[in-house]
This record gives sequence, structure tokens and C-alpha cells, in this order.
Amino acid sequence: MNTNVIVLNGGSSAGKSGIVRCLKAILPQPWINMGVDDLIDRLPPSMLDSGNGVSFGQGGEVILGDDWRAMETAWTKGVAAMARAGARIIIDDVFLSGGTDQERLRGHLESLNVLWVGVHCSPEAVEKREIARGDRIPGMAALQAATVHKGVVYDVEVDTTHAETLDCARAIAEHVR
Amino acid sequence: MNTNVIVLNGGSSAGKSGIVRCLKAILPQPWINMGVDDLIDRLPPSMLDSGNGVSFGQGGEVILGDDWRAMETAWTKGVAAMARAGARIIIDDVFLSGGTDQERLRGHLESLNVLWVGVHCSPEAVEKREIARGDRIPGMAALQAATVHKGVVYDVEVDTTHAETLDCARAIAEHVR
Amino acid sequence: MNTNVIVLNGGSSAGKSGIVRCLKAILPQPWINMGVDDLIDRLPPSMLDSGNGVSFGQGGEVILGDDWRAMETAWTKGVAAMARAGARIIIDDVFLSGGTDQERLRGHLESLNVLWVGVHCSPEAVEKREIARGDRIPGMAALQAATVHKGVVYDVEVDTTHAETLDCARAIAEHVR
Amino acid sequence: MNTNVIVLNGGSSAGKSGIVRCLKAILPQPWINMGVDDLIDRLPPSMLDSGNGVSFGQGGEVILGDDWRAMETAWTKGVAAMARAGARIIIDDVFLSGGTDQERLRGHLESLNVLWVGVHCSPEAVEKREIARGDRIPGMAALQAATVHKGVVYDVEVDTTHAETLDCARAIAEHVR
Repeated sequence: MNTNVIVLNGGSSAGKSGIVRCLKAILPQPWINMGVDDLIDRLPPSMLDSGNGVSFGQGGEVILGDDWRAMETAWTKGVAAMARAGARIIIDDVFLSGGTDQERLRGHLESLNVLWVGVHCSPEAVEKREIARGDRIPGMAALQAATVHKGVVYDVEVDTTHAETLDCARAIAEHVR
Repeated sequence: MNTNVIVLNGGSSAGKSGIVRCLKAILPQPWINMGVDDLIDRLPPSMLDSGNGVSFGQGGEVILGDDWRAMETAWTKGVAAMARAGARIIIDDVFLSGGTDQERLRGHLESLNVLWVGVHCSPEAVEKREIARGDRIPGMAALQAATVHKGVVYDVEVDTTHAETLDCARAIAEHVR
Repeated sequence: MNTNVIVLNGGSSAGKSGIVRCLKAILPQPWINMGVDDLIDRLPPSMLDSGNGVSFGQGGEVILGDDWRAMETAWTKGVAAMARAGARIIIDDVFLSGGTDQERLRGHLESLNVLWVGVHCSPEAVEKREIARGDRIPGMAALQAATVHKGVVYDVEVDTTHAETLDCARAIAEHVR
Repeated sequence: MNTNVIVLNGGSSAGKSGIVRCLKAILPQPWINMGVDDLIDRLPPSMLDSGNGVSFGQGGEVILGDDWRAMETAWTKGVAAMARAGARIIIDDVFLSGGTDQERLRGHLESLNVLWVGVHCSPEAVEKREIARGDRIPGMAALQAATVHKGVVYDVEVDTTHAETLDCARAIAEHVR
């Protein structure tokens, strides 16, 4: 059975977006990406910086409210439906609650053939890359690097600390059926 | 029954994106947008400028191949599933085949409460706005202005030729239940 | 003597950027743009949201500190030097202090042939356009619409309230030698 | 005498932009950046993809015409004037003609205290990063990696192949007076 969905989980600045671009360029079949940032980008103003939606603390922590949870559930069900209808989807996500988030996502992706990918990067490196990107909330990257992989089970894991993004993507692509 | 989906149909440079931003700002409930451009933006390189995917002719015409059709169908089924799962969705689209495209979309949105909106703008004005935007293929706007509304049936129609974007959005918002 | 510099003055959301893109597309000679926003975009983080640099009040007011003044003076002298060296430059600016700002800029542009352009738009329209753009500080547009033209003398004036951007650019282009 | 100008020279995808962002974040004084890409970004449509302006060959080569040369000279004189007027400027450039380009730039920067920085990266790594960025002309990065440093003399050199961007910036910052 062919792979329908690739899930990339990793903290902020770990290098997920670059891996997504590489995968789309090197995989022989057409893949599209639908990540958690894509949902955040299209939230209405009332759901940003609000306790019910998505807001960000001073130290880089992400605070998710009830309206976000409802919206994210509907979004994820829709992404799963796209995959069931034949689209190959790369989901890049940040499992703030680690294994608990994986289980919830696994539930939505039932009956699909999912490749679970861990994107690691050392806290020291993500902290430096956060500064180099210039548009990120300081502290978020290091905070997430330590926690998003807790209790998560992967089919393949890559580490961008010392490897080029394209090489990480190639390692992942070998597992795509 | 509440409105689940707002479909905005109009040619390039007619002002759909501005109306989407206004609707998200003024509607009391949270709405997210999922337009045809959002799908194009996430296509892999192999599907752009290719006969099977999406390509653009010298005169501004859009050429859609079989791979695009398959991808768009899966995408639309997913968007409909998001709405059925409780997300309020604004779809901004360009019905290149007019009423035929509406019927296909209507099929995907079955059981949902859809508000169909026509976004008009004179061919002269869109041609000028295309130049003012600077990043568009010359000719596309005028070409589409004439054809995308053929055979399409609307619940509400707005014309951005002489009206401010926000005023068009307000006129639409009055029809949202 | 040929026009070396076009100065566009108008408040936020009055439509200056669109006019700049149109002018660059329709003028027969090559023109480049160097506006106040281009300087703000390249300020270091320490000069943004700081009392010494550029910061923004709750009501949309812009607060300029001493470091900004020094930086802006050096920037403007450099832009004038580009024009003296043969580059045709479009400066789009917001004269927060009206005529006083014009006199200071006039001093920097000595010996150059400057076309002074006023870009008007009604406070009601800019307020609506600010919402349609979605990424602006609410209130800034209306606040500036009322004040940036005070005591400023123009060679040509356009009003984007009811006119297309391209038509405004064409009216300006007729005055370029 | 304090450093007025930092010149970063390196090929496409070598990591100059990230170093620029880091330098602006870590240097105690305010610095602004004015690179060759900033000029290209503001060229009128008539100078792009034209033999007189800037165009790009199939293999990633950059072709510069006479109009570009005139514009670049005026631009560079203006940037030098900004620095002479007190602004601290980071110039990121691609010396397509190596040492010849350095000599021309050195002429424009006379009387200023310039820190010349070489930004190296292996051809293998830039080729991979070009794919990961997704919006670059294939081949340009590897082509430039081999040639832009020929005959150029530096005050400090960094290599982004195995080092984090921020660490490269810190090494450069130690040389800024």
C-alpha cells in the first residue's frame, strides 16, 4: 500500500519547512503540504492573541484555547479527507503535547498509510537559527526542542543539527512507498 | 440553519482577497479561507508550468491538466469535510468554466449551507489593477472578467469597480446567517 | 532639465505603493523606488519598538526618536546622491509634520529637479482600506490622512478615493520631463 | 576609527542574508543593510529579463547589461554617501567578476573604513541549499561558489558549510570596531 501521508514533527526552527520543500522537489509523485502553520496563517484576527484562539507567552510558549481546538479538529478531519480522496499530503506539525498529540492525529488519520517522521535538532542550534531567521519569538525554539518528541513513535528520524536539509529529505524519501 | 461556506467567484484582480480579509475581520464568528490560489501555492514544482498541472499561456489564459483536476477534486472534498466538521470556510475561486464549475463545486458541498457570491469588476478596471499589482500575468484579468460569471447563479453580487472593498464585504455579511 | 526625483507624499493606505508600481511600469525611462518604508524595513531590531527609533502608539500614531532622525538624514543624503549620480528615484514618504518635512527634504534634494506629488484619499476610504489590507495598525490611516498635506506645496495632486491607481499614475507621468 | 561599512561577498545560497540578520541583532550599534538584491528588487519591469538590465541564463548564469551597470554605479555611490553621512551599512554582494568587482567597489567606498568579509560555502552544500529554498534558479549557487572569491582580499573569512549562521556572524562581529 502506498504512503498517503507524511507527518513531520519537530520544534520551531528545526528545519521542517526546508525538508517539506525538498520532499516536494524530489519525490516522484505530486505531494502538497498542509501544516499547522498554514491553519494559523488563515485564522481571523479575533483568534490571534486571544485566550480562546492562539496566543504566545513572553518566554516563547504557545497558548491554545478552546476555539483553536475546535478549529484544528475540523481542519485535521478535512486534511484526512483530502488524503482519502487521493491527494498525497505532507503534514508538518509541532506536537506541543508530544505523544498525546500523536495519538489524537493518529485517530484522525485512520485507514491512511502514514509515515511518521521525527525532525530533531539540538536546542543550541535551534536557538541560534531562531536569531538568524529574525522573525521568530525568542525562546520558542529551545523550549519546543526539548518537549515535542516526548512519547512520540517514529518510522524514521532525521537530525538537522549537522546534516543538510536535502540529505534529511532524501533519508525520508527512501521510506516513502 | 447557519451558513457553513461562503463561495466568492470572480476573475483575477476583481478584489476577492481584500473581501476575504474584510469578511474575516467583520464577521462575528471565526471564518478561515481556503481558495484555489492556496492550492496552487502548495503544488510541487513538477505540477507548475507543466501540461499535466497548471500552466499559463502568453495571453493570460490558464491551462489545467489532468493531474490538476485530480488534485483539485481531492482538495475540494477535504475543504467540504472541514466545513462538515464545523469550520466556517470562505472559498475564493475563479470559475474558468462558469456555471459548469459551479455545478461541480455544488456537488462537493452537498448538505452544507452555501452562500454563493459573485464578485464583479469591469474589464477596464481589472486591467488597470493588474498593472498596479505588478506581479500578475498581463491579460489574465480582462480575459477572466468576461467569462467567469457565465451561467453562474448567485445569492448576492457585489461590484468592486466603484465600491470600497469593505463596503462589498458588509453587503455580503448581511446575507450570512 | 529632466526630472530626477519624484516625491509622493500621502498618508498610510492612500495608495502610494500602487502608484509607484504603475509609474515604474509606464514611464519610458528606468526608475527605482526608495521610500521611508524601505528604511523602516531594514532597521535593526533594537530600533523598532524603541523610544530612540520608530515605535507605534495604540491609536496609530508614529513616534520617532533621535536615532531614527539621524538614520533618516543619512539615508536621505544617500538617496539624493544616487539621484545626482544619474539614477531616477521615486521617493514615497509620509510627511507626518507636513510642510516642515517637505522643507527638510527639499534641502537634501538641492540641485535636483524634483516633481512634488500629493496623493490624497478621503479619511473614510483610507479607514476602510486599512481594514481590507489586514496588516495595518488600526487608526493610523485616518490619523495621517488629515495631517500629512498641511503646508505642503505640490506640482501635481491626485486623489485615489474614486480614481484607479493607474489613472493617478498616468496623471503624474504627464508631468515627468 | 570605527567601521563604517561591512561588505559580505559570497555566492548565492552561501548564507549571506542570515548573517546580515544576525549581525543586525548582535552588533551594539544600529546597522542597516543595502545589498545588490535590494537594488534588483526595485528595478522596473523593463530592466528585468532584458539584455540591457539583468537577466538569467538557463544554467544559472547572471547576465548584466549597460543599463544595469549605470544603475548599479549610481546606487553604490548613494550607499557610500549614506555611510559618509553616518549610517552604518552592511553591503551583501556577489562579486561575479571577483577581484575586479572588489576594486570597483573599493573605489566607491574611498575614505570609509570597510571590513571585507568572505562568506564561503562548499559547492556541494550550496547546491543542496538551493533546492531546499525552492525559489532559486538551479545551478546558480554552484556556479557562483567557485568564482566569486577569485582575486578578492578579505579582512575576515567565514565558512557556513559546517558552522551555524550565528557563529559566523559572531566571528565577523569581533572584527567590527
